[in-house]
Amino acid sequence: MKRVAFFISDGTGLTAEALGRSLLSQFGHIDFEQVTIPYISTKEDALSVVKRINRVVEESGLRPIVFDTIVNEDIRQIVSQCKGFTVDIFDTFIKPLEKEFKADSSYSVGKSHAITDHNVYNVRLSAIDFALANDDGAHIRHYDKADIILIGVSRSGKTPTSLYLALQFGIHAANYPLTEDDLDDDYIPKALKKYKDKLFGLTIDSARLTSIRTERMSNSRYASFSQCEAEVRGAEAIFNKERVPYLNTTDMSIEEISTRILAISGIERRLQS
Amino acid sequence: MKRVAFFISDGTGLTAEALGRSLLSQFGHIDFEQVTIPYISTKEDALSVVKRINRVVEESGLRPIVFDTIVNEDIRQIVSQCKGFTVDIFDTFIKPLEKEFKADSSYSVGKSHAITDHNVYNVRLSAIDFALANDDGAHIRHYDKADIILIGVSRSGKTPTSLYLALQFGIHAANYPLTEDDLDDDYIPKALKKYKDKLFGLTIDSARLTSIRTERMSNSRYASFSQCEAEVRGAEAIFNKERVPYLNTTDMSIEEISTRILAISGIERRLQS
Repeated sequence: MKRVAFFISDGTGLTAEALGRSLLSQFGHIDFEQVTIPYISTKEDALSVVKRINRVVEESGLRPIVFDTIVNEDIRQIVSQCKGFTVDIFDTFIKPLEKEFKADSSYSVGKSHAITDHNVYNVRLSAIDFALANDDGAHIRHYDKADIILIGVSRSGKTPTSLYLALQFGIHAANYPLTEDDLDDDYIPKALKKYKDKLFGLTIDSARLTSIRTERMSNSRYASFSQCEAEVRGAEAIFNKERVPYLNTTDMSIEEISTRILAISGIERRLQS
Repeated sequence: MKRVAFFISDGTGLTAEALGRSLLSQFGHIDFEQVTIPYISTKEDALSVVKRINRVVEESGLRPIVFDTIVNEDIRQIVSQCKGFTVDIFDTFIKPLEKEFKADSSYSVGKSHAITDHNVYNVRLSAIDFALANDDGAHIRHYDKADIILIGVSRSGKTPTSLYLALQFGIHAANYPLTEDDLDDDYIPKALKKYKDKLFGLTIDSARLTSIRTERMSNSRYASFSQCEAEVRGAEAIFNKERVPYLNTTDMSIEEISTRILAISGIERRLQS
């Protein structure tokens, strides 16, 4: 029987999920059924959550693990009465922080969000627009406005990474696919020369690339191992010859590719929160 | 002088950031300078982080707040020796969880990632491909494969939301812009009728829409308040008449729009982690 993990919040639940999963992943041998319950903002909501948790205890005999990031203290109190094993993030850390800051916390849901969020939204939207408009290398006329230009062979991770960089950090990421024409010699494509300082390479193991391309177009030359291997070798030759910083994305999540690019390139986030 | 907050991790740092920011946002009157230091995986890395934190103490006289999600205990021990105020997430929660599970945690960095991550990556990639291929309403031939179809006027939040749903949850989200032709009467466009159960509407306040469209194309009819107001009214009339569930995105983050859509529509994530 699977152990149940609840992620409960009066907001999106994403922080409770991120923290809870990061802790649970340290117990890799246990199988968890994960349930996120966001937007618990009334006492009635909270009581129904408690019922749901207690039902799991009754039916399985196992206490669910309950990660909650409920800001409102009254609502949090109710959830803490459940029969699960609660990991109450605010209860644990807010009091010590209040002491350190010699200040009360606001303890209010979504406080001051409305003021700043439009700004954050605008920055993200503009970055997404940029990534989409500069996704295929067809146009390079906006490259002077790019924070970074990802280059690599087809399916090496450029598009997901540029979108993640946009959404998470507001970064304007263009991407330029290295095609067979570009791989003829060991130099970066002429069109990119003047943007050399903004280039960042992505590479990937040939076997993994073969598998990804096969999903897209099976039994094609494009997806064949020999083609993938030749392209990867050509791309890496360019990165090395031209000293373009690059990453091998084979075993990385999109988050890891993106944050490693920030760490290596030193480019600044346009969003701090 | 700003108080400094460090987010430190042997991984991406995103969990430390999410948790730290969510706690700090409860102290809205304090201004924080936020510094993320990811991929701290050696003792040397950790020692240099400690130095950096201690330098802030010496220069400002204020203890920085240090949120860390370092899995490796030896590395964590080093960071915990710093002169900052540390909020050590693993130290706080892992021990009680080990007791609850009657099991040791693995305490290893990136454990078992390689096995599952390719699968996760594939699901996300396929969802991103889907969102991009179905982003403008030009093609509807893949709508039978959509998990959800977002409809709304231009710049009501459809594209960022469909991309976020893809990246975060692996959901296949198409989006269809309601144009003036579609807004002539109070019915959903004919082409969408057979997918009615998958439709989800996004709306937005006219003033906010005017502001967003002005960023894109200032002084145009497209961005004028009267045009925005007429389109928004037309879209909402359709949602109401046809009983399409919908959200007003005006004051919502992309995360909130996306998670509320999940909560309202009940569609299943394709990614659980």
